[in-house]
Amino acid sequence: MPNTNTFKGRMTLPAEKGMDKELALLMEKWGCDAVRDSDGTELPANIKELGMDVYSTLCMVRADKEFGQNNRDVLQQKYLMSDPVTAFEDSLTIELLKGYYDQQFEIDCAHQPAKWWEVRNRSTGEVLKSSEWDFDAKKGAVTIAKAQKYNVYTVAFLVYQVWDSTSMYNALTNGWSGDHPGAVDPFQPKAREHLKVFLQKWLGEHPATDIVRFTSVAYHFTNIFSDKAEPRYRDWSGYTDMISPYMIEKFEKERGYRLSPEDFVTAGYLNSCDRVPSKQYLDWIDFVNEHLVAFCKEWVDITHQANRKAMLFFCDHWIGTEPYGKRFDQIGFDSLVNPVKNAIELRRIADVPGNYQREARLYPYFFPVNLGNQPSFAPGGNPKAECVEFWMLVRRALMQKLIERIGFGGYTNLAVQFPDFIDYVAILADEFREMHAMSQGVPSYKAPFKVGVLNAWGKSRSWITKEFHLGGLMESLGGLPFEVEFFNFEDIEASGIPAGVKVIINTGNADTAWSGGQHWTRAKVTSAIREFVAKGGGFIGVGEPSAHDHEGKFFQISDVLGVDKERHMSVGRVKTKLPSEASHFITADGGFDLGFTSIEIFADFPEQLKVLVAARDGIKIATNNYQKGRSVYLAGYNFSWANVRLLYRSILWAAGQEELSKKWFSSNYHTEVSAFEKGGRFAVYNNTNDAQETEVFRADGKTVKVSLAGNECKWFDI
Amino acid sequence: MPNTNTFKGRMTLPAEKGMDKELALLMEKWGCDAVRDSDGTELPANIKELGMDVYSTLCMVRADKEFGQNNRDVLQQKYLMSDPVTAFEDSLTIELLKGYYDQQFEIDCAHQPAKWWEVRNRSTGEVLKSSEWDFDAKKGAVTIAKAQKYNVYTVAFLVYQVWDSTSMYNALTNGWSGDHPGAVDPFQPKAREHLKVFLQKWLGEHPATDIVRFTSVAYHFTNIFSDKAEPRYRDWSGYTDMISPYMIEKFEKERGYRLSPEDFVTAGYLNSCDRVPSKQYLDWIDFVNEHLVAFCKEWVDITHQANRKAMLFFCDHWIGTEPYGKRFDQIGFDSLVNPVKNAIELRRIADVPGNYQREARLYPYFFPVNLGNQPSFAPGGNPKAECVEFWMLVRRALMQKLIERIGFGGYTNLAVQFPDFIDYVAILADEFREMHAMSQGVPSYKAPFKVGVLNAWGKSRSWITKEFHLGGLMESLGGLPFEVEFFNFEDIEASGIPAGVKVIINTGNADTAWSGGQHWTRAKVTSAIREFVAKGGGFIGVGEPSAHDHEGKFFQISDVLGVDKERHMSVGRVKTKLPSEASHFITADGGFDLGFTSIEIFADFPEQLKVLVAARDGIKIATNNYQKGRSVYLAGYNFSWANVRLLYRSILWAAGQEELSKKWFSSNYHTEVSAFEKGGRFAVYNNTNDAQETEVFRADGKTVKVSLAGNECKWFDI
Repeated sequence: MPNTNTFKGRMTLPAEKGMDKELALLMEKWGCDAVRDSDGTELPANIKELGMDVYSTLCMVRADKEFGQNNRDVLQQKYLMSDPVTAFEDSLTIELLKGYYDQQFEIDCAHQPAKWWEVRNRSTGEVLKSSEWDFDAKKGAVTIAKAQKYNVYTVAFLVYQVWDSTSMYNALTNGWSGDHPGAVDPFQPKAREHLKVFLQKWLGEHPATDIVRFTSVAYHFTNIFSDKAEPRYRDWSGYTDMISPYMIEKFEKERGYRLSPEDFVTAGYLNSCDRVPSKQYLDWIDFVNEHLVAFCKEWVDITHQANRKAMLFFCDHWIGTEPYGKRFDQIGFDSLVNPVKNAIELRRIADVPGNYQREARLYPYFFPVNLGNQPSFAPGGNPKAECVEFWMLVRRALMQKLIERIGFGGYTNLAVQFPDFIDYVAILADEFREMHAMSQGVPSYKAPFKVGVLNAWGKSRSWITKEFHLGGLMESLGGLPFEVEFFNFEDIEASGIPAGVKVIINTGNADTAWSGGQHWTRAKVTSAIREFVAKGGGFIGVGEPSAHDHEGKFFQISDVLGVDKERHMSVGRVKTKLPSEASHFITADGGFDLGFTSIEIFADFPEQLKVLVAARDGIKIATNNYQKGRSVYLAGYNFSWANVRLLYRSILWAAGQEELSKKWFSSNYHTEVSAFEKGGRFAVYNNTNDAQETEVFRADGKTVKVSLAGNECKWFDI
Repeated sequence: MPNTNTFKGRMTLPAEKGMDKELALLMEKWGCDAVRDSDGTELPANIKELGMDVYSTLCMVRADKEFGQNNRDVLQQKYLMSDPVTAFEDSLTIELLKGYYDQQFEIDCAHQPAKWWEVRNRSTGEVLKSSEWDFDAKKGAVTIAKAQKYNVYTVAFLVYQVWDSTSMYNALTNGWSGDHPGAVDPFQPKAREHLKVFLQKWLGEHPATDIVRFTSVAYHFTNIFSDKAEPRYRDWSGYTDMISPYMIEKFEKERGYRLSPEDFVTAGYLNSCDRVPSKQYLDWIDFVNEHLVAFCKEWVDITHQANRKAMLFFCDHWIGTEPYGKRFDQIGFDSLVNPVKNAIELRRIADVPGNYQREARLYPYFFPVNLGNQPSFAPGGNPKAECVEFWMLVRRALMQKLIERIGFGGYTNLAVQFPDFIDYVAILADEFREMHAMSQGVPSYKAPFKVGVLNAWGKSRSWITKEFHLGGLMESLGGLPFEVEFFNFEDIEASGIPAGVKVIINTGNADTAWSGGQHWTRAKVTSAIREFVAKGGGFIGVGEPSAHDHEGKFFQISDVLGVDKERHMSVGRVKTKLPSEASHFITADGGFDLGFTSIEIFADFPEQLKVLVAARDGIKIATNNYQKGRSVYLAGYNFSWANVRLLYRSILWAAGQEELSKKWFSSNYHTEVSAFEKGGRFAVYNNTNDAQETEVFRADGKTVKVSLAGNECKWFDI
């Protein structure tokens, strides 16, 4: 059992002026050892006397509002694409910002449109000559004098983002008033020089600050608003901001070729992370990262010279830093912090290579409304219930990959009005500290092999996903006892399947970055995977794995999977109908529900195929034996505890290690087990709000019966 | 009311020896005026005395078994593709016929494999040099000495089809015994000459025959059997048979380029009619048709010279004749016959351009088992119920497009054992003859505009479909009061939207021939359709209409449809959510169920879009206004009476002619109305087995209440 309230530390508290009594209470109850400020709050003057570390948030690119207002030429820029417009007459006028939020963007009239913009006929794919169109700056419109009637046209054009995304979001969503600061572009020499001076000045003005929490390096995730002042387009890993003529010319000089407006707008998809990234886009990311690391290192060095530590806020603003990339450690950050409401978000920060102090800012944020704009720390809200719900997802991920610290953000004066919330955080803080006591730096039990996740992004987008199959699956995986390695198709071509990987997962809709699209036409890739499985490896395909229309197959390794998908292009092929297996290791615990699934999956190589679940619209779960290896196909995946178990069993079966279902394994899939062998104890935790009974398989072949209250975590000696 | 048993004629009966009494009964009860033989039966000797026309079936290509056996070199040939095989070792051996039925095919060893075959690496797409592989005729296997390990290989090779498909089907499905005749290839000069002589001889030996019913010209539909002697691949409009070196060389000489084995096997898809046809395949079809028409005309001429008439059996063997093509009328057939169990099959024959006597051979076939291999004219069977079910689908199509004759096939001695069946056929025969009495050569009421069906095949595959959306939709359309015109993308480029078409339907899965695939990237096509709708036309898209990934859209005319499909490549785009309309003209009669639908359909152009039905996985039914025109989107379509009504209303709404729902229209969608203005009567018919009440809207604004027994058809004066 955890020794409640005997631990202290590893926890950060948001503090503000005039809350001395409450601060003392929470220091006692939660064991906090650091405080931070929040947007719009000020720390108590006597904060250092409390003996706590002080974090201060600093958003470099929008901190000096005056500089931004006086230097509009270095505000951040980007390409937008006008909405497609059809020519109903010979002449066509396109209002560029129609459908966009006019307080977020201003058309860049400073750089010659004829040189920097691109007008395309989307019906033919042709680029119009600049002599074929005119830009009217007053109307903000492009006119094509002689358009092809009934053809569709778009304009890719440059804008300044005149209102910083976070500030705008808070104003629009939370009703914050105030001015509209624009974020400056630190790639521009003038801004870069100014920000260095500004940072030195800021450090001087904040002597109490121990840790500068850089709430941004430069980039905000892509967040484009509509003419209704509502979200229009978002991409948490999108490199759409800070695309300026300055940077494009620099790119051309350094990389030897010029990027076109189309390389950025990509027919309106804006290089969505869901699309298979182009070479141009990957080159751009690398180029941006190279230069961002350079100026970011200047900031961290200045911070260190002032004897402070530098922390990266991961969430909105990690873009450009590429924490999983080859240059991240050059920057010299001391610590990383990420808002964390589930396993994916915990693993996103926990798995970053390198030696960092890492902190998870837990949810709910101490704020009247939550992310869903529902009451939270306000009448009608239930912050404790919210907190429990998130903690159930985060706790199991921490059990697998422990990080140094947790914390909260927001307004402490709101939090203290909810005593049941305060009590629950005390419990979760102790659960967290107990993990540290047991871990002693050694991770909990893991299966003796790695799980590899294959997609077009690979390592660079570890634990980042928007795709729905992948979302639930990665969330599940983040709390299972496996080391996980993300890799891409170039990695396979360069050096084969990563060492230690025993099971590869590929999941997603056809032709997305997650499934991999045209990369599956690379013979070196498909051969390497066939060889890997043939020699005893496992492959798990979910949704439309390896899918791309090529050489007679849709699933390019349908021989490995045993199944392919009928897209109504070969209806004449009579499909082999296989009976469903009465029982199987993978489905033994039942209860699963795959949700929306890929339909019309059929037995393409029926010889070794076993159908575990089928529906009227096709195969839903199947296994295949391929030489010495195994594959599992799941037609869909949603997050649920039963599905987590289905995935766990799928991985063990694909690895040919079914016996591991008798080692640190819980018979009841609503509960999970983590064994910390160095600390000599194992935890059994209930992920649900209801009481649960389970039988735990230890490593020594013995079993233990365990009863758990809702959400409870119990510890036992090994 | 029909004057039961006062009509005679327009009906063909299968007759056989020794059934004189039964024949007389059916002549009386059904009013037959012609008899035919069936496979394996012989007509009564006194048949001419009964005063009836005699049809005799003749399958030219397999009729002279002896010739086929003695001239194996002119048996029909085709390309097959071996199943893909993975190289697990350096050397790879592929057994060519593995997975195929060895009694159907023999490998063609007569034509040099190195010249005529093709071995492909399907992982890389490369064609192997002939020096890189060897064929062992004894083993029927190709060996690649130095294969790329873990790459997948296929062989495209020539075979002789040594057992005719129909004969084989009857042997395997119906247990018929006997020899295995192969069909000869009349394109080969030796066979062509022989068949002319044979036909002359055959006519001499069949003096009683009035009409030669050519059960084949040359081609059987593609019907490839597996090593389990079960259907493996089928394509009712596939040109896979009679691909011989002789014809390939002739093609090269006449068309100026050589077709490769890959042009025929197309990575294993065998040019499935569901795939967008390639230029090569269309050229091949045209070439085959050109030469087939030439020798087929010889046969018809010989038949005419013998003072007989020539009838084309449509079903299994129309391939090559191209009844909707430009040369069909050159052949000179007098009549067409088709087995007909529904509206599609009726319209397939009824809409063939030209002046032909047309006959529908109704179902069930007088045989112990039916097409589903269930008891029919046998203990446990219910042929009357089967007959009613089919007649409900055929009757409404005949109401729209009347043909000259109906008939049955099979063994009359089986039929007469089911008196309720005999009685029902008497009713349906009278219903059919009543249509003629009322029509007097003038079709029933039609809406004053045409419905156009747009796909990659166009006119040439009118009323031929395998695609599931399209199947049910075409079946529905076949009995609605619209002239229907099929056209393709070339037609639009050449001459715009066909005259008279007011509503275009495009339906099917993405990138199939039915939806149209890459043809939607033709700017002339999309412009023409935009113009057509903008000026007041209607467009109905079903499933994945106009779908092809191109220039930022999936549905290429998403501006016209208002909707597009999210394929998880732009999840970051925030979708506009529209409320569902409380009521709408299209959905006013309710009861519909679209079945499997395309998921994640979203509002791409929400301004004019109205959502009629939405589900958790996206929009299901929507309408859009586009300038002066309208579009309707249906996410799926299955055949049902409620869906027929949904389609009917969709067409009227898309045409902007909602007022036609008050003209010859039935309030109860289980019943339909057809008005024969020349005959001065209108029919109200119940398509269900249950009694129905309905209100009929006449053309003059008056309404009539009608009660109908199950399946009943009532006639009223206009």
